Amino acid sequence: MSTIPKSFIREILHVTVQPGMISFAGGLPNPHFFPVREIAAAALDVLAADGDSALQYSTTERYEPLRQYIAQRYRDKRGMDVSADEILITNGSQQGLDLIGKAFIDSGDPIAIERPGYLGAIQAFAVFEPQFCPVPLLADGVDIDRLSEVLAQRRVKFFHTVINFQNPSGTSYSQDRRGELAGVLERYETMVVEDDPYGELRFAGAVEPSMRQWLGGNAVLLGSFSKIVAPGLRLGWICAQPDVMDRLVVAKQAGDLHSNSLCQRILHQYLVNNDLDAHIAKITSAYKRQRDAMVRAMEEHFPAQVSFTRPEGGMFIWVTLPEALSALELFEPAVQQKVAFVPGTPFFVDGGGRRNMRLNFSNADEESIEEGIRRLGRIIEEQLSDKHRRSS
Amino acid sequence: MSTIPKSFIREILHVTVQPGMISFAGGLPNPHFFPVREIAAAALDVLAADGDSALQYSTTERYEPLRQYIAQRYRDKRGMDVSADEILITNGSQQGLDLIGKAFIDSGDPIAIERPGYLGAIQAFAVFEPQFCPVPLLADGVDIDRLSEVLAQRRVKFFHTVINFQNPSGTSYSQDRRGELAGVLERYETMVVEDDPYGELRFAGAVEPSMRQWLGGNAVLLGSFSKIVAPGLRLGWICAQPDVMDRLVVAKQAGDLHSNSLCQRILHQYLVNNDLDAHIAKITSAYKRQRDAMVRAMEEHFPAQVSFTRPEGGMFIWVTLPEALSALELFEPAVQQKVAFVPGTPFFVDGGGRRNMRLNFSNADEESIEEGIRRLGRIIEEQLSDKHRRSS
Repeated sequence: MSTIPKSFIREILHVTVQPGMISFAGGLPNPHFFPVREIAAAALDVLAADGDSALQYSTTERYEPLRQYIAQRYRDKRGMDVSADEILITNGSQQGLDLIGKAFIDSGDPIAIERPGYLGAIQAFAVFEPQFCPVPLLADGVDIDRLSEVLAQRRVKFFHTVINFQNPSGTSYSQDRRGELAGVLERYETMVVEDDPYGELRFAGAVEPSMRQWLGGNAVLLGSFSKIVAPGLRLGWICAQPDVMDRLVVAKQAGDLHSNSLCQRILHQYLVNNDLDAHIAKITSAYKRQRDAMVRAMEEHFPAQVSFTRPEGGMFIWVTLPEALSALELFEPAVQQKVAFVPGTPFFVDGGGRRNMRLNFSNADEESIEEGIRRLGRIIEEQLSDKHRRSS
Repeated sequence: MSTIPKSFIREILHVTVQPGMISFAGGLPNPHFFPVREIAAAALDVLAADGDSALQYSTTERYEPLRQYIAQRYRDKRGMDVSADEILITNGSQQGLDLIGKAFIDSGDPIAIERPGYLGAIQAFAVFEPQFCPVPLLADGVDIDRLSEVLAQRRVKFFHTVINFQNPSGTSYSQDRRGELAGVLERYETMVVEDDPYGELRFAGAVEPSMRQWLGGNAVLLGSFSKIVAPGLRLGWICAQPDVMDRLVVAKQAGDLHSNSLCQRILHQYLVNNDLDAHIAKITSAYKRQRDAMVRAMEEHFPAQVSFTRPEGGMFIWVTLPEALSALELFEPAVQQKVAFVPGTPFFVDGGGRRNMRLNFSNADEESIEEGIRRLGRIIEEQLSDKHRRSS
């Protein structure tokens, strides 16, 4: 199962690098905002001050000042009681998912995920052969009743959620839904994996509390610098309380000893030298313009039967086509017209997503977004009238 | 089983950072030889020339020029027919072991390892719950007859070997033993995982052929820049033919998408700007002096009943104590005398190693080596006469 979406996405990404392609397919941050000069300055600082340590082996959990920075940020920005000991530095949040799979999934274990679900999580967990229990995602969070049924039926190891601006759907959990989720997880003593790479890319709405604020040690948080600084550094983190942390550190040590020491220090030096909030504000205001451009273009160029999400942050919009259409059938003609997207099917482990498309708006300028959506709209119109003709 | 040596080693490493400790316990390269200034220059080059790409997501296998460099080096130095497509960049060779475990081990699968075995491999594989089949290591390679019996009895997934200057024993395979190993692996169609992080740290003897030169696609090679450039970069590689490579790439993508892009480029730029062979020559001549100092000191200060290996390269010497003694009982008094080493037991998955110590010589200067061995020798003498007194 898991290898099918993977090779499919891979094929898509090969297509997207063709010259002239307008790609809404990837999940790339806009490289225009990478702080290249600031990273170079930080690299020089680090190598001049402490080159030997930056190039040596280190302990599994650190770099210590980076762990402290992350914990401090949880305290300052979210009012959360997090200590540096509860932070494990990982190679992006993707490795966080891998370590959680390693530490918690035995072959055949049920785990609950969102439907549609984050493909990277599906891939990471699939290696450990769980029984996936997908629970539908509604407009403001997971279907609580359905989740409750799943947890009642099976001894689920954990529930994985991308809680803000989900990939692929753009959905965020409302405060009410979070509270209900906490209630049901508490009732069944089920751990939540709160995966939050996009949470700081918010351009509307209020910051909602983390599941950790309800569940304490039964919430494991994943964070990442990929979307707010740069993904090429491959640095993210897991935030977890000691009993969970111990298992994750063993898995991390067995997996690759520790994350890149040099880049951990460069990143930390960058964070010390610069104003991260100002940097994030720059990114989010650009992404907001790009989302606005995409929503506006879809309102103008897509037929009224096409629906789509209007995310308050993040990088993705989720499109639902009319019953008659298939996103897979749209894909070929779109590529011929030099527009790429990801059809919905890879995000469903149990079939589904036939009528869905994931559109990324973070890595295209407003002009390309307008043009790409115009082309997609034309193809949708054509296929719709084609189907209509045939059926009448 | 696997978590016992891990926490034990961890405890030891806590001890070794005490002030004034002479540590033969770790496996650290000598930071004196880290090319700090050259890495800084390379970082500036990379970020000035191509910062956006260096900080963006990339494909799983690359950075492409680094893969080409590694393949070229196999061709130039070893006369091996390796193409860049056969190289997957990993986070040190530790992640190579993890990916091989992921791709090949199902719970309960028999795998053959050396006895004593490399602890990092034991830890990486243990996560996937194999049945370990340890095969004794003799003076010039694994016990071929015993390996042959193991392969005849069980459908072993692969045999893992640290073929040059093994950790912990310092043992290298002779050419004859390699040929015999190839023969028996061929007979039972068993894959070899040739783990070779120390191969370039040779200060005596001739370079022997790789198992790949006999076994082709049935040999998977692991290499690392940790010992020849710097471990903090966390960069190594797997060299494997396409069918194996496909499985490893899937595992790598699920695990952390790809290795650190920035450091891959910095490392490549460093390799382009500098003479790696000259750098390695500098390291190995220092390590040779350090090994010589350790051997000389052991000949002088250790009782004649203590035996030890005289490795032709690498970083470790393996000590065997007389029957009456236990390395674990030596550990406490040694730490009190401010000398640390790793007792042999963690390197055995089936018990054993009671009389062994692993001594690292790469990360201490000649003076400390002489002093540390002198202290160890005194403790050994004391314990020997103590035992002798009690038994008489």
